[in-house]
Amino acid sequence: MVVGDFATKRQLVIIGGGPGGYHAAIRAAQLGMEVTLIEKEKLGGVCLHKGCIPSKSLTQASANFSGLSQYKQMGISVPEASFDYNTFSNYYSSVVTGLQKGVEALIKANRIEHLTGTASFMSSERIGIDSGHHFEMYDFEHALIATGSSPLLPKDASLSNRLMTPHTLWELNELPESLLIYGEDYFVLEAAMAYKQLGSEVTVVIPSDGFGLDASIEKELLRVLKKNKIKVFKNHLWECAEEAADTVTVTLKKDSDEKVSFETSHVLFAAGYSPNVESLGLEAISLERDENGFIIVNEQGQTSVSNIYAAGDCTIGMKLASKAIKQGKTAAEHMAGQHSAFNLSLVPYVVHTNPPIASVGLTEEQARAEGYEIKTGQFSMSGNGFASILGQKEGLSKMVMDAKTDVILGIHMMGAGAAEMIQAGTYALEMVAREEDLAYPVYAHPALNEAWLEAVESLNGKAIHVPPTRKKEKSSV
Amino acid sequence: MVVGDFATKRQLVIIGGGPGGYHAAIRAAQLGMEVTLIEKEKLGGVCLHKGCIPSKSLTQASANFSGLSQYKQMGISVPEASFDYNTFSNYYSSVVTGLQKGVEALIKANRIEHLTGTASFMSSERIGIDSGHHFEMYDFEHALIATGSSPLLPKDASLSNRLMTPHTLWELNELPESLLIYGEDYFVLEAAMAYKQLGSEVTVVIPSDGFGLDASIEKELLRVLKKNKIKVFKNHLWECAEEAADTVTVTLKKDSDEKVSFETSHVLFAAGYSPNVESLGLEAISLERDENGFIIVNEQGQTSVSNIYAAGDCTIGMKLASKAIKQGKTAAEHMAGQHSAFNLSLVPYVVHTNPPIASVGLTEEQARAEGYEIKTGQFSMSGNGFASILGQKEGLSKMVMDAKTDVILGIHMMGAGAAEMIQAGTYALEMVAREEDLAYPVYAHPALNEAWLEAVESLNGKAIHVPPTRKKEKSSV
Repeated sequence: MVVGDFATKRQLVIIGGGPGGYHAAIRAAQLGMEVTLIEKEKLGGVCLHKGCIPSKSLTQASANFSGLSQYKQMGISVPEASFDYNTFSNYYSSVVTGLQKGVEALIKANRIEHLTGTASFMSSERIGIDSGHHFEMYDFEHALIATGSSPLLPKDASLSNRLMTPHTLWELNELPESLLIYGEDYFVLEAAMAYKQLGSEVTVVIPSDGFGLDASIEKELLRVLKKNKIKVFKNHLWECAEEAADTVTVTLKKDSDEKVSFETSHVLFAAGYSPNVESLGLEAISLERDENGFIIVNEQGQTSVSNIYAAGDCTIGMKLASKAIKQGKTAAEHMAGQHSAFNLSLVPYVVHTNPPIASVGLTEEQARAEGYEIKTGQFSMSGNGFASILGQKEGLSKMVMDAKTDVILGIHMMGAGAAEMIQAGTYALEMVAREEDLAYPVYAHPALNEAWLEAVESLNGKAIHVPPTRKKEKSSV
Repeated sequence: MVVGDFATKRQLVIIGGGPGGYHAAIRAAQLGMEVTLIEKEKLGGVCLHKGCIPSKSLTQASANFSGLSQYKQMGISVPEASFDYNTFSNYYSSVVTGLQKGVEALIKANRIEHLTGTASFMSSERIGIDSGHHFEMYDFEHALIATGSSPLLPKDASLSNRLMTPHTLWELNELPESLLIYGEDYFVLEAAMAYKQLGSEVTVVIPSDGFGLDASIEKELLRVLKKNKIKVFKNHLWECAEEAADTVTVTLKKDSDEKVSFETSHVLFAAGYSPNVESLGLEAISLERDENGFIIVNEQGQTSVSNIYAAGDCTIGMKLASKAIKQGKTAAEHMAGQHSAFNLSLVPYVVHTNPPIASVGLTEEQARAEGYEIKTGQFSMSGNGFASILGQKEGLSKMVMDAKTDVILGIHMMGAGAAEMIQAGTYALEMVAREEDLAYPVYAHPALNEAWLEAVESLNGKAIHVPPTRKKEKSSV
């Protein structure tokens, strides 16, 4: 390796070519900055290669495959339907490759310098880049750290093709016979539903007592999981895993130290993440981080070192590509002198189960805990005409409203169309919509969206497709 | 028939049990009114029995069936897939029956008096109801006319099982070998796409030069129709149809009186509607109507006779169930003394083609015609990651913005998810959203909704997944 002693100047150096990094790079370029983007592997990051895109390909394939069971009654006969995991793997790989090429072309079109290598800070204005065969130093005005995070590993166990994390799951080349999933976030639910509907036996073990969703949604979710014959064990803590030739035995600790064991062909350990910051030389710049090592940023994405920003999974807070994208763009705008800020209180939370779940704003429980006096309105998808046409009548829509001001605080849905519909909720909450703002507009008919209108009208007992609740009537003759 | 001479009193009499009528009946009952609902056939009206529900069952079955062609590459093999029209007919009939029972139960639960018969006004306060075997008179405080409309018939031709209107189409018991569709509204497009994708040869003949959509959407639509091998003939006027044993020959008049003929196995004539008001005895109350007989109403649904309201397809303006529902509920609220009004400028327009089209607010052309100085932003679905996962990359999203105020004037989309996503557009336009209101929120990733963010960001040349347009650069050395 050749190590130079001359540092060239760069306006903005971005470390990490995932969604946070590449969105920031393009936005900065749009705003006239000269940008250097450093990625040690492929552009697109975990989201494109081991996260969002493979996982939504999986959930979509599974939803499509399981949806076939509805088709016969509609007149569509599919007598020999079958699923092949290898073809599926090739499919999502081709989607990933297509999107990766798209990102590469955009980076080039925006005249962004793209370097392959690993970066480490030498000071708050200098970074070194090791590309394997040589090492270069750059003096930067601004830097953005967007290196992501890695799944935590089960203690005292090593990964294999049977004991996997959300990032290694994509190395599977066949459908697991049985899959135990440990964790409690959205991906646990997505993987559970997808593999079950494709044919695996699935057991979900969660360390806590729930998935953190609004209680009405969670109740419906648990009903759907049960109907799908997915076993769920709450309040079980990971103890250890032992691998044999064809099986893994997982031991869990229940309350009062009782231990239980499960034998399964495959395990997905999806219980938390650690930030990818070890080799960044952060000791040279002493960034503030939280107790788990995640970088602390303000709402412009700035770290405690004012010319160094961070975005995405390596920062504090939720681990979602949508957050990384917003933080990356905001950081670029702020560096370019714009008055930009992000607000993570209204990030839509989407779970691609079947049916999907989507949520924005406060759950009923959160709203009460924050001291709101609330009203809620709820409508079952079984009362929605379009859901009947689809033959997808599971789920519900729920509105949480501040009873004093009529401001909508949260919208929660499980049901067909939820992923697409939730953006309306984000707009509504961002614009501080009141009940009348959602009740007044005309809703297309027939439409899944009408379920929201009924949920809104339910806030005041005025849903059309909900029978009136009769008070006990006194004889008054 | 027994004709009484005694008129009993009713608070609200509603004529017609379609969406306008039954929504009004339930809302009025919720507000404490005593309601009598008169329907001559089945509750649910044309929407349920011959309109929305059968047609969306058809478009959904067709979308599902044609979607199978994408499945193989995803790993889902469906080697023997086939479509059976009779099974489909049974399916939508069962959906219709289920929904009809639901409406009947709601009418009962809301203690609404449901009469079967035909009604005619005797004065602006008295109505007669002929139930076949007897005739009764009712004196009412308020009345609501919600009798709907009927498709116009082709002149000098009679309907048959080969020459159909949108209401008789549902009597088909097999897939047409070839179908000529005459008309220009959304249902023409839905039927064309559905029958073509199920296997019929389809020809669309439109009397004007387009479907009235935003020009960018219409261009993409015509491309998709062409790709689907659906022939479209513009500016052809219906002249006559002649039926033989197995065919219908349709003659059309092109510009400068040139005539052309098409031979086809089936014809769908879908060119306009007339209001169902002939037998209502309107001469007794002299309601104001337009030149085609449609009842003129104000934005409370009131006719020129202040205690008589009208809702839905029998009134002026668009023929959409969504409008009927809003007008019916508003009329009921107004009768009950509430300050209620509807605004039909922001009715979402949804076309269940494949991919679907959805639109709200002004098209680019309408905005210009209204004198706005505008900016537009557009994003192709081929650049959206979730569309890539679905393998549904056709279509685009488009924003029309007032350049002076940054207020969004219209949102138009063709593409997967459009029907569900459009409600976000309605909320945005109702709340007078500006560009920043749609650019600021966090969008889930990956999601079809991100196409809207890119369209919004395109308004200012800041879409991430659109390459920058380079000005011709001068050498400046």
